[in-house]
Amino acid sequence: MTKSGKAYLIGAGPGDPRLLTLRAAEVLGEADVVLVDDLVHPAVLAHARTARVLHVGKRAGLRAFPQELATDIMIAYVRGGAIVARVKGGDPLLFGRGGEEALALAEARLPFEIIPGVTAALGAAAYAGIPLTHRGVAASVAFVAGQRAADQPSALDVEADTLVVYMCQRTIRQVACELITRGRSPMTCIAIVRGATWHDQEVFTGYLGEAAALDDDWYQQLDPAPPTIAIIGAVASFADQLTWHARPPIPLGLLVAPPLRIAGGAAR
Amino acid sequence: MTKSGKAYLIGAGPGDPRLLTLRAAEVLGEADVVLVDDLVHPAVLAHARTARVLHVGKRAGLRAFPQELATDIMIAYVRGGAIVARVKGGDPLLFGRGGEEALALAEARLPFEIIPGVTAALGAAAYAGIPLTHRGVAASVAFVAGQRAADQPSALDVEADTLVVYMCQRTIRQVACELITRGRSPMTCIAIVRGATWHDQEVFTGYLGEAAALDDDWYQQLDPAPPTIAIIGAVASFADQLTWHARPPIPLGLLVAPPLRIAGGAAR
Repeated sequence: MTKSGKAYLIGAGPGDPRLLTLRAAEVLGEADVVLVDDLVHPAVLAHARTARVLHVGKRAGLRAFPQELATDIMIAYVRGGAIVARVKGGDPLLFGRGGEEALALAEARLPFEIIPGVTAALGAAAYAGIPLTHRGVAASVAFVAGQRAADQPSALDVEADTLVVYMCQRTIRQVACELITRGRSPMTCIAIVRGATWHDQEVFTGYLGEAAALDDDWYQQLDPAPPTIAIIGAVASFADQLTWHARPPIPLGLLVAPPLRIAGGAAR
Repeated sequence: MTKSGKAYLIGAGPGDPRLLTLRAAEVLGEADVVLVDDLVHPAVLAHARTARVLHVGKRAGLRAFPQELATDIMIAYVRGGAIVARVKGGDPLLFGRGGEEALALAEARLPFEIIPGVTAALGAAAYAGIPLTHRGVAASVAFVAGQRAADQPSALDVEADTLVVYMCQRTIRQVACELITRGRSPMTCIAIVRGATWHDQEVFTGYLGEAAALDDDWYQQLDPAPPTIAIIGAVASFADQLTWHARPPIPLGLLVAPPLRIAGGAAR
């Protein structure tokens, strides 16, 4: 008699492990196998008491772990009768590529469920004190990705009152320049949130024009750091008033001013 | 010696009480007072074991419960030293008016925290099987409200690949017409999700042109019903393939075809 397998595509939330849903914790407790991405807090896995945990994120090895391989592993385990929890940061269907995995499961005629999670934008907004919509200030919000495939056209949305750019650690300057070129004022407020909801969350606030003038040094520093999200629009200015988590916001202007440099690049 | 009060602005998620976060459940367990909106599942309040629960939603009485009064009550309790959990459906900072309450707390110099929740769009997407972004199909998503103050301009965003319209139970036809007028094809896919993540969730799928032609009878039926969210864009077509929760989607076309009518409105 074989056990009937099932897959759960689970959003683990933005970072703080307490932002996991009760349902996700429950399923993790019943899972036989957990396939987990990067950017999921290790404490989330504590709910998977009896499961075999496999790390299939891009940082699992020296190179990227292919998404297709992770999907194949998931399908093989479900076929074999396992309860598989596929755990992703944020929400699985918003920049999480969960749609592709759900399609693969549907095509393989395997049972699955999708458990939504608190997406990074909501985590960043809450922990930085920035309402994404606010009466009289912002009635709409758009979410775009700062990193995209080279063949994809720009998805930047200049119509929404609030624009949230995910995964912009390497592209925030380019994004800011493009928005200004497309008509957004350089005086538009922006908040850049690094490692949203993690204990070391950092918030930078200022203007789009400042983000467009960011220094290369700051970029290089960002590279291996936690993921970065930008909230652009008048609501970003609330961060200075509504801060409650960790450190207060740092003015972007401080990063734009030319820093002291030691002559000769070799000395670091 | 007085206890030090504190307010928590909490998102309870889209409906299914299992989509509450661990952090929200923890805070509810410690709260002295819970101020709860409509659209929060009663089972969520089970976590507030020892708290006094006050219903301050629009449906609490015969008329709307003023938001300002709810905020005043919250502030009075916090000043008095209480731990107050202000619980809202979805996420507090995305169409939740949590920004206004946080500002009132900040101005009163009272301590607060904001606990994000799974917003209705993510709940609807997961439980209806609709990825909001999908490689090669949708790289951006915008969230707008279907109900807005009469003096507010339209916030409809036609630039985003996926458009999510919250609280559109009375306006979906008008929204569809406006999008078509502004250049969206009548053949754009749409999924209308009623009572997302609740046990009686219903999903209707079809085309924008069909939504623009919806019958008045359907509207009248919607009025006291659970809140309705529309997901517009090519991703909406996935609902037919990726359905896993409750009933399969109902074709919108069935509602548009002229129904049989009994002559003389009096016979209901």
